Amino acid sequence: MQNFNYYNPVNIIFGRGTISELPNLISKDSKILMTYGGGSIKKNGIYAQVKKALKGYSILEFSGIEPNPTYETCIKAVKIVKENDIDFLLAVGGGSVLDATKFISAASKFNDGDPWKLLSEAAEVKSALPLASVITLPATGSEMNCGAVMSKKSTNEKYPLADKYLFPQFSIIDPETTYSLPQKQVINGLVDTYVHVLEQYVTYNENAPLQNRQAESILLTIHEIAEKVLTESENYDAKADFFWCSTQALNGIINCGLPQDWTTHLIGHELTALYGIDHAQSIAIVLPRLWYNQKENKADKLIQYGKRVFNISDINRETALNTIINKTKDFFESLGIKTNLSDYGINSEDAAQKISQRFKERGTILGERENITPDDVKEILLNC
Amino acid sequence: MQNFNYYNPVNIIFGRGTISELPNLISKDSKILMTYGGGSIKKNGIYAQVKKALKGYSILEFSGIEPNPTYETCIKAVKIVKENDIDFLLAVGGGSVLDATKFISAASKFNDGDPWKLLSEAAEVKSALPLASVITLPATGSEMNCGAVMSKKSTNEKYPLADKYLFPQFSIIDPETTYSLPQKQVINGLVDTYVHVLEQYVTYNENAPLQNRQAESILLTIHEIAEKVLTESENYDAKADFFWCSTQALNGIINCGLPQDWTTHLIGHELTALYGIDHAQSIAIVLPRLWYNQKENKADKLIQYGKRVFNISDINRETALNTIINKTKDFFESLGIKTNLSDYGINSEDAAQKISQRFKERGTILGERENITPDDVKEILLNC
Repeated sequence: MQNFNYYNPVNIIFGRGTISELPNLISKDSKILMTYGGGSIKKNGIYAQVKKALKGYSILEFSGIEPNPTYETCIKAVKIVKENDIDFLLAVGGGSVLDATKFISAASKFNDGDPWKLLSEAAEVKSALPLASVITLPATGSEMNCGAVMSKKSTNEKYPLADKYLFPQFSIIDPETTYSLPQKQVINGLVDTYVHVLEQYVTYNENAPLQNRQAESILLTIHEIAEKVLTESENYDAKADFFWCSTQALNGIINCGLPQDWTTHLIGHELTALYGIDHAQSIAIVLPRLWYNQKENKADKLIQYGKRVFNISDINRETALNTIINKTKDFFESLGIKTNLSDYGINSEDAAQKISQRFKERGTILGERENITPDDVKEILLNC
Repeated sequence: MQNFNYYNPVNIIFGRGTISELPNLISKDSKILMTYGGGSIKKNGIYAQVKKALKGYSILEFSGIEPNPTYETCIKAVKIVKENDIDFLLAVGGGSVLDATKFISAASKFNDGDPWKLLSEAAEVKSALPLASVITLPATGSEMNCGAVMSKKSTNEKYPLADKYLFPQFSIIDPETTYSLPQKQVINGLVDTYVHVLEQYVTYNENAPLQNRQAESILLTIHEIAEKVLTESENYDAKADFFWCSTQALNGIINCGLPQDWTTHLIGHELTALYGIDHAQSIAIVLPRLWYNQKENKADKLIQYGKRVFNISDINRETALNTIINKTKDFFESLGIKTNLSDYGINSEDAAQKISQRFKERGTILGERENITPDDVKEILLNC
């Protein structure tokens, strides 16, 4: 086990009817900016619940945050924050809204030029506005971590941001808020959660039997509940389990003292930035091909994953490895997500060329062993 | 899943050599009271490491905190805190030292009479001194929670205390500090960790597949590493895994949204208070007999535990249940701990009489179903 630091001060309030607890969580004299997306929270009643709970508070609203939230949109919110002395940000929505709100939080206190530098140059976050969330989509895990991913429309770029100042003070998770989600978002959330675990679990072998089992616990639970999650939109138990899996997948617990990969996400971000496909689609495409490319480097963990999650104990190692990779791809397809670039009308040569070129220009080397070069990325994408 | 609140802001610094990080964690102008036990930290070099790291700080020391720390001892530390304007408490030692320090922290700010009321009457903690730990014994999990257990010598009482003000600001866990532990403490720590999980896991069935697997992850890991932990005192990997298991067993994650029992601990505390046996000994004695007493009420979870941890899938339910209980008792014995009151020279009728009488006087009803009466406790202890 490598030395590690684990710190996660997010106050999680989980369960039915918990939006009504907002007044116990935000000081009465706060000047709140409530951030949200395209307005689905007005249709499903969540907006009304939040407004009712916060009756009497001073609240401005900022709506229109898009999936894969953009710098161009968020910078408008930063202006509102500054002009109105906002001192608390409340994100109401999914991971995109919350990620955007984390950026708004940091950008509002950034005094060193263009806040895009927080992403493009990983400029230091020296301070940030307090933020919290009512999270309505099980997927990104953003509700219990200090990370975010932001895009810039003008340059088709997408970068991660993370800092200890960006933990939500609290996150309210009411599984009932997910009842009205479009099926596509449910599928995407399942895939995103599952891949978050794999990025932290399928690396090289390092002593950590507890953390490995904690990771497998999430994978096994996703397999157990996926069908109910997909077919029973108002099954509280299944929705609650799914949400808690997605939160636990990215709150730092499963990777304590362990190497992490994230190659799939970083290549996926480029596919989203260049071709506009969903984040979950991009990672469902990339992951199996990354594993083929890194089969020997990841063999020990792949075999363990296959044994404990798929019950595969093939005598022939090579056969076992291929079976495990295919079963993972098949699992994504069984959830209803396509796993080939061609399924989305994307030319693999075009993607391979453009993305490997970008990584070359940036000097990006990927993987838990820091061994995946832009040429590897090209090969991976040609196989997608 | 029941509604729940999860909040745990403890900053964990885990790994080799991490005591040297103390200066990054405590403000230079702090007036520190360093608390510790009988002086083993002076023999094994931990005291010297801490003092070296905190060179230049203003530090007073309070030593002599005993296993099952007492009110009588801790109240002396409270006096020192007040007389010297101490503003930071640093516990260096095991769970007893840290529990005592949590009490000192709360008692130093208690303005409503005798601080023992914090335990005997569960008086409200309205404020507390900042505290942190260098934890050197994997067992209680106190390093990542806000709970403590304290004893009063003059009345042979032992009570729990818990409050959000009592989270350590940070806990440093260096597995190498455990190399010099006496074997008895290692055994006790393994049993304590294992029973902490069972108190939260073997209750009644409630939907929570992820939390169940997270609990089983700890149990399976303890089974996997126990022999190495016991026989290879300087096996870093085994010691690190053990420590992280014991921390995770009682940091709140495995019981999110679930009922909890704690009957074994509450009866065990009485055995320790009355007869002076170790905490781990007391719970190893009580748990199997509690399970026989509550076999039907706990049957579903016992069967699941037997299947997933011991690989027992007996067709006859009654046989399976008895096998599972016996295997747990046998596991404790295999670690080197005795599981009968007579092994410690304690008369079971005496214990049954005295403890059930105490619970009668206090009106104590125990168990996740709140169904275990003082008469049940009498029967449980008669079978011990």
